[in-house]
Amino acid sequence: MAAPALDFWFDFASTYSYPACMRIGPPADQAGVVLRWRPFLLGPIFKAQGFDTSPFNLHPDKGRYMWRDLERLTGDLGLAFRRPHPFPQPSLLATRVAMVGLAADWGAAFCREVFRAQFARGMQIGDAAVVGEILREIGVAPDPVLARAGGEVVKDLLRARTQEARSIGVFGAPTFVTTGGEVFWGNDRLEQALAWAAREN
Amino acid sequence: MAAPALDFWFDFASTYSYPACMRIGPPADQAGVVLRWRPFLLGPIFKAQGFDTSPFNLHPDKGRYMWRDLERLTGDLGLAFRRPHPFPQPSLLATRVAMVGLAADWGAAFCREVFRAQFARGMQIGDAAVVGEILREIGVAPDPVLARAGGEVVKDLLRARTQEARSIGVFGAPTFVTTGGEVFWGNDRLEQALAWAAREN
Repeated sequence: MAAPALDFWFDFASTYSYPACMRIGPPADQAGVVLRWRPFLLGPIFKAQGFDTSPFNLHPDKGRYMWRDLERLTGDLGLAFRRPHPFPQPSLLATRVAMVGLAADWGAAFCREVFRAQFARGMQIGDAAVVGEILREIGVAPDPVLARAGGEVVKDLLRARTQEARSIGVFGAPTFVTTGGEVFWGNDRLEQALAWAAREN
Repeated sequence: MAAPALDFWFDFASTYSYPACMRIGPPADQAGVVLRWRPFLLGPIFKAQGFDTSPFNLHPDKGRYMWRDLERLTGDLGLAFRRPHPFPQPSLLATRVAMVGLAADWGAAFCREVFRAQFARGMQIGDAAVVGEILREIGVAPDPVLARAGGEVVKDLLRARTQEARSIGVFGAPTFVTTGGEVFWGNDRLEQALAWAAREN
């Protein structure tokens, strides 16, 4: 019997995807659940809902609350936190590069460093030089990766990925989806999603 | 030194206010935190954000997810659950009656029975006959209460209450606010809010 699995959908620009990405590894291991990392773009999904930016920008009260909540949350987790400017950051390039890395063996490490660069180090993750620096830091030569990330294969994969997110009803990030199709939205649903995935098997 | 306190803001039509209301008593007692029940109307706050109904109706993917999430959540808590039709239910009358009850000693019991009537028993909480039935069930004579609930004093109090919610940045329900002004939004933040309130003291 295959190990239970959980799809981990996230957007690099999504604030609550930061704590989710940084903490997901150990509890998944402990639950015996295999993670399938699914970076995608929330932008087209928000656009389909009529939003032209993050709902946290469109609704200032909710946005103010979110930043404070994230500050408390990262504090509890011992994660450094700095509010990114501008917000949201363009996540397209990092997402393409992550797809290259997840097909190799450095995808998860890259994702964590992108989140850390943006939410702890105040770096601009839409900048190719920044993405190149992150790659070098995890021991990956940037040039061939950036070339592959800009190619048609990765572009098509990402379009299909974002389409898949829509078709399963993903409307925010992070979202966790079990093999049986059970959907859990939000960093605070991680434990419940892992328990559900483990029970499904 | 006064006991630590927590304001519990909720709207009777709010789906996640149902589990919050049904479970809040014991953990608050255990944390030594005094609850101040703050029923209010989310409608005017949604209107100010440009919504003419619940965001769960405006965004069908999010709505579908919420109903499934609530079903799982109430299942875990051992609470009966039936989806109310129509949704959202008109909560004005029950809110006014709750304000009368909270000034007496039957407010919390009434609030729990209103949520149970709506989310477990499929009753129409906007109906004065239903509210009257709930009052009788908790041993309160309906007629004088309904008369007082329709009076100017309660109307003014409720308007001020909803205005207060806006001024402290409440944008959804349930919301928990500590004496020190720390705001926590959502049923899943209850434990964190209680711990914060206890620490503040």
